[in-house]
Amino acid sequence: MKNFRQQQHRPKKSSLVIGRQQVIKALQEGKQLERIYLQQTVHGPDIDQVKQLAAQHQVPINKVPVEKLNGFNITGHEGCVGVIAKVQYQDLQDVLSFIVEKGESPFLLILDGVTDIRNIGAIARTAYCCGVQAIIIPDKGVGALNEDAILTSAGALEKIAICRVNSLMKAVDTLHLNGIRVLASEMTAEQSIFDCDFKEPAAIIVGSEEKGIFPALMKIADVQFKIPMAGNFESLNVSVATGMILYEAMKQRMGG
Amino acid sequence: MKNFRQQQHRPKKSSLVIGRQQVIKALQEGKQLERIYLQQTVHGPDIDQVKQLAAQHQVPINKVPVEKLNGFNITGHEGCVGVIAKVQYQDLQDVLSFIVEKGESPFLLILDGVTDIRNIGAIARTAYCCGVQAIIIPDKGVGALNEDAILTSAGALEKIAICRVNSLMKAVDTLHLNGIRVLASEMTAEQSIFDCDFKEPAAIIVGSEEKGIFPALMKIADVQFKIPMAGNFESLNVSVATGMILYEAMKQRMGG
Repeated sequence: MKNFRQQQHRPKKSSLVIGRQQVIKALQEGKQLERIYLQQTVHGPDIDQVKQLAAQHQVPINKVPVEKLNGFNITGHEGCVGVIAKVQYQDLQDVLSFIVEKGESPFLLILDGVTDIRNIGAIARTAYCCGVQAIIIPDKGVGALNEDAILTSAGALEKIAICRVNSLMKAVDTLHLNGIRVLASEMTAEQSIFDCDFKEPAAIIVGSEEKGIFPALMKIADVQFKIPMAGNFESLNVSVATGMILYEAMKQRMGG
Repeated sequence: MKNFRQQQHRPKKSSLVIGRQQVIKALQEGKQLERIYLQQTVHGPDIDQVKQLAAQHQVPINKVPVEKLNGFNITGHEGCVGVIAKVQYQDLQDVLSFIVEKGESPFLLILDGVTDIRNIGAIARTAYCCGVQAIIIPDKGVGALNEDAILTSAGALEKIAICRVNSLMKAVDTLHLNGIRVLASEMTAEQSIFDCDFKEPAAIIVGSEEKGIFPALMKIADVQFKIPMAGNFESLNVSVATGMILYEAMKQRMGG
């Protein structure tokens, strides 16, 4: 089923920026790109400029064989194609400053290894309902947050801040520098979520169902907690487990 | 997508009981049938016997045009085809007696209008993790709990008791007679879930995202409660909302 869906959602021509100068212009004008596809064999000063601007605007680059670009069914791509972002990504530090300026207590969600865009959409929907101000995702491994993801999120992906970062480790550093505690959900942890304090500024990390959270990331988290299960059947779906965690945190923050 | 999936899951020949005498025999031997398809125009003493046994064993009958039966691509159906149940349905009173005999406090879930079998599968997965002993579903409007539903439930549908009832109203009566409080989840309710007591024997009703809970059923519930939302975006997915409710109940019951 996944493959079926993915096939249906090759980027439309209208969402592509085609050619080196067009991509440079788009980046210079501040147009948000989901990613840039560069043909593996291309080089030259304009390609260098694309790479530099992409790094500056935190747009991931995928180096691909020419067949991938030809597959877009376009002409004149010169080995360089940008995909216009459907979701407006925001800078993490900007978002944190904005939250504090509004007088709110930061409440963030970090998704590590949750790659299925419909899972991300479903989680964004719950997160927005629960008062999460921003979701942090890595720029690698996650598919483009396209129309399908926005649909699954019931529009929440267009309302909640999405921070796409180059490194989740560095993002946690940024959170720590801003006085935000980081709590990681892990089924093997000793501490129960019942004993966690989510009232202070907090960011919650959830991992994928298969792999959990990356060990180094787990290590720099301030707290590891589990959701105790009544049965001996520990098999919560990531979207449902995240819902339970955000419910607990929301309840505490609402004084419930 | 729903249609695509449904097409894929027409019952296999091996899961069909074909012909009047075969269906009568299956019912008499106590074989669990998901439902019986009767051709609209058939009648006679053996059809009467099928109807009588179906009522006795709580198997729903669908009256269908002959084209539906011919569509199964079988011969000799005589206007009567049974579909073998993948899930073993259990009698509500039997289940309640069994729970009490085990010395457990009843914790049940009632699904009203949740018709998508994958939603039911996902909810069963969460419910089983949270210690729910049985799920009550109506025998009308819900698709067959097939392999697809079992897969979505990560196998939970084969482990948790499923009570399929002719009337949810009567099921609530049965629960009341057994001293079980019935709590209904409804976004417009005044009482917050934060103030609900789930420690005593409890059954929770959740409705569909579109229609909520049937008004008459809502009326006979002992408590109506809502999940307060931090944002003004009240759009939880039914599976996630149910997860939050079951988490709260489980936490209370575990003394967390």
